[in-house]
Amino acid sequence: MRDVYHDELDDIGKGVIEMTNLVAIAMDRATSALLDANLAQAEAVMAADKRIDTLRTDLEERTFQVISRQQPVATDLRVLISTIHLTADLERMGDLADHVAKIARLRFPESAVPEEARDVISQMGEVARSLVTKVADVVDGRDIALAQAIEAEDDSMDALRRKLFTLVLSPNWSRGTEAAIDMTLLGRYYERYADHAVAVARHTIFIVTGRRPEH
Amino acid sequence: MRDVYHDELDDIGKGVIEMTNLVAIAMDRATSALLDANLAQAEAVMAADKRIDTLRTDLEERTFQVISRQQPVATDLRVLISTIHLTADLERMGDLADHVAKIARLRFPESAVPEEARDVISQMGEVARSLVTKVADVVDGRDIALAQAIEAEDDSMDALRRKLFTLVLSPNWSRGTEAAIDMTLLGRYYERYADHAVAVARHTIFIVTGRRPEH
Repeated sequence: MRDVYHDELDDIGKGVIEMTNLVAIAMDRATSALLDANLAQAEAVMAADKRIDTLRTDLEERTFQVISRQQPVATDLRVLISTIHLTADLERMGDLADHVAKIARLRFPESAVPEEARDVISQMGEVARSLVTKVADVVDGRDIALAQAIEAEDDSMDALRRKLFTLVLSPNWSRGTEAAIDMTLLGRYYERYADHAVAVARHTIFIVTGRRPEH
Repeated sequence: MRDVYHDELDDIGKGVIEMTNLVAIAMDRATSALLDANLAQAEAVMAADKRIDTLRTDLEERTFQVISRQQPVATDLRVLISTIHLTADLERMGDLADHVAKIARLRFPESAVPEEARDVISQMGEVARSLVTKVADVVDGRDIALAQAIEAEDDSMDALRRKLFTLVLSPNWSRGTEAAIDMTLLGRYYERYADHAVAVARHTIFIVTGRRPEH
């Protein structure tokens, strides 16, 4: 009985790793779509979001079945409830990549990102990638030592968002209100993506250690 | 055994009703804080958010304990997992009211909302109130006939958000980029608040009927 149980947990774990990889690729592509006004990339992100949503539904159902059949208590049950939260966060990360891709598509064939904002947006994309790569390492290898580095990346993302506001609000901003709105929404999407990535790392650390990391 | 179980479910249900009422009051106050540049209201929202967060942690823990002790399967288990999702949505609604209140505080003693946007923001506040009142009726009396009306209110919120964009992007907008950014974020916060309210209603309908409403 315990073997089937652990096989099921391993399978769910593999699904979580797959979801993490998919949302990493999604935001990476969304950033390229934005910076290079690449419509094909934007559309690839939107198509992949459907796969991410399906995977989440599937993982939640499998987690539900394990709880229902194995009736775990204590830590085992907490791990499974954490998995449910974690897949919700990953699904949301996919949605946010999709939102970024939609802004790229909306402004196509222009780039949604004016020249003077390219640097900040490109850095936000890099922080997103670096952050989610670390989260994937936590989820996959369960290298929980990365937790601190993940929180630090989240702080970098917040700093970049403030930088983006400063830029848009500077008297030199000549790109008008529409571009300012795009930058505001993009800043928000990248920030929320990072928040959910941190939440995924925290849930995983709880799954491994049984202890909630400090906020 | 079943009696204790149903008492526990009733208690959790009461907690969900309390959370729903708190997030309704929170957004209502946040809207007043915005429109009347009322700092005390803004700070009341922020203080209440801590109570909402505590209530959520408490409800999730109690739900966890019920699953752990009673080992429900099938529909009973689905109901409890839905409750976990639903309290997460309610907590997020509290956060979004908090974000609105923070914009009010940031611009105090000015109102964050320029004259020409008062109408739309005030309508967004009304739709939020009307929506969450219906959600509270679903959660409390379990009047699932309100489901359609709730979806319609969500559509109204989306329409108001588009109206806000049109206003900010019109050549007549004379309030500059900062106010445009505030309106963009406010629009996003009200929209997300409505999305989560709809999710709460959907989870409750699932709890009552055992069937997922159509999206």
